[in-house]
Amino acid sequence: MNNQGFFITIEGPEGAGKTTVMSDVVARLTKEGYDIVSTREPGGIRISEHIREVILNNAYTEMDGRTEALLYAAARRQHLVEKIEPALNENKIVLCDRFIDASLAYQGHARGLGIDEVLSINEFAIGKLMPHLTLLFDLEPSVGLKRIAKHDEREKNRLDAESLAFHEAVREGYQEVVKRYPERIHVVDASKSQEEVTEYVLNVLKNSLSSRMK
Amino acid sequence: MNNQGFFITIEGPEGAGKTTVMSDVVARLTKEGYDIVSTREPGGIRISEHIREVILNNAYTEMDGRTEALLYAAARRQHLVEKIEPALNENKIVLCDRFIDASLAYQGHARGLGIDEVLSINEFAIGKLMPHLTLLFDLEPSVGLKRIAKHDEREKNRLDAESLAFHEAVREGYQEVVKRYPERIHVVDASKSQEEVTEYVLNVLKNSLSSRMK
Repeated sequence: MNNQGFFITIEGPEGAGKTTVMSDVVARLTKEGYDIVSTREPGGIRISEHIREVILNNAYTEMDGRTEALLYAAARRQHLVEKIEPALNENKIVLCDRFIDASLAYQGHARGLGIDEVLSINEFAIGKLMPHLTLLFDLEPSVGLKRIAKHDEREKNRLDAESLAFHEAVREGYQEVVKRYPERIHVVDASKSQEEVTEYVLNVLKNSLSSRMK
Repeated sequence: MNNQGFFITIEGPEGAGKTTVMSDVVARLTKEGYDIVSTREPGGIRISEHIREVILNNAYTEMDGRTEALLYAAARRQHLVEKIEPALNENKIVLCDRFIDASLAYQGHARGLGIDEVLSINEFAIGKLMPHLTLLFDLEPSVGLKRIAKHDEREKNRLDAESLAFHEAVREGYQEVVKRYPERIHVVDASKSQEEVTEYVLNVLKNSLSSRMK
């Protein structure tokens, strides 16, 4: 794997503003001449899309947590091989919305499968292609849930007490992951305004990109 | 996992006579009063069947070997949870045609993904439910291929030199696996007549079953 490019992932819960900030950041960096591929699994990769159909089928209430984690890892692998790796080999900057850390936080910690165990299948899936840099959008779960409720009435039904507890477990999971990869992961205070977060993220990215080019 | 039952797997290449011998053995043991569940992944489990559709789609020539291995592990997990584990919990004998060792031999060794790596995702998939006993049908690949050619004209086209090399690699892979699990795996000389193999397998199974009941 001759990855000359730069592989960045964005992580964090729903409602943390990842998508909006990312699209701003990509627009700004592209304008400044950076060659960026922005993606998110399954990312239009037909095998990964097909696997997601299995994962997201609402009728499959019997699906075991480990089956699900293996399917996510399989979809991740194919998306990586077909989309991320070729872009890196063309010396591009790849920005991926959620990657391995989401599985560690959600499935490994919050769903209780174990971070080490979920890490082992994801290491198999991604091989040597760990992200060079990860931006973790961190936010008080209650704030994130309020933001979602404000923007999407449909989501509101799911925001019960259990859901808050789950989101708190996800945050805890992400914090565990930061402890394991303190050099790779930068925590972004997502409680700040969108403009402030965008500026902060742009700064971190430009510093990393320029230090990488030296 | 309170598995009171006895979990047996049958392994080996195509053409080794597994299916015929297994059905004879199951018939004989059932007649003698043993409560046997005979299965083979995906085994009618709808999630596993759906995953197999992805694996077996001939159009997906771009499928990466690791994606495939993760999908096999996912289908294995769900089949285990829904079919094997409940039967073992009901104190039954489960006979499964191919399981973890097939992945180690085919994907790990013959396809070159690495036995340790394929083992790690399969350990995640099966948890503590390793087979208690495994019967490995061993046969000179050229003999197995001749048997298939005799029984199925359609298969003949695929029996070129490359195919023989692949089957030799699979046999090598199984031999590696035997070295790792010498206590669990019994090698069956599948070059003998069907009657002889059936008698041998019955003997091994009965010895294991009776020593387990003591």
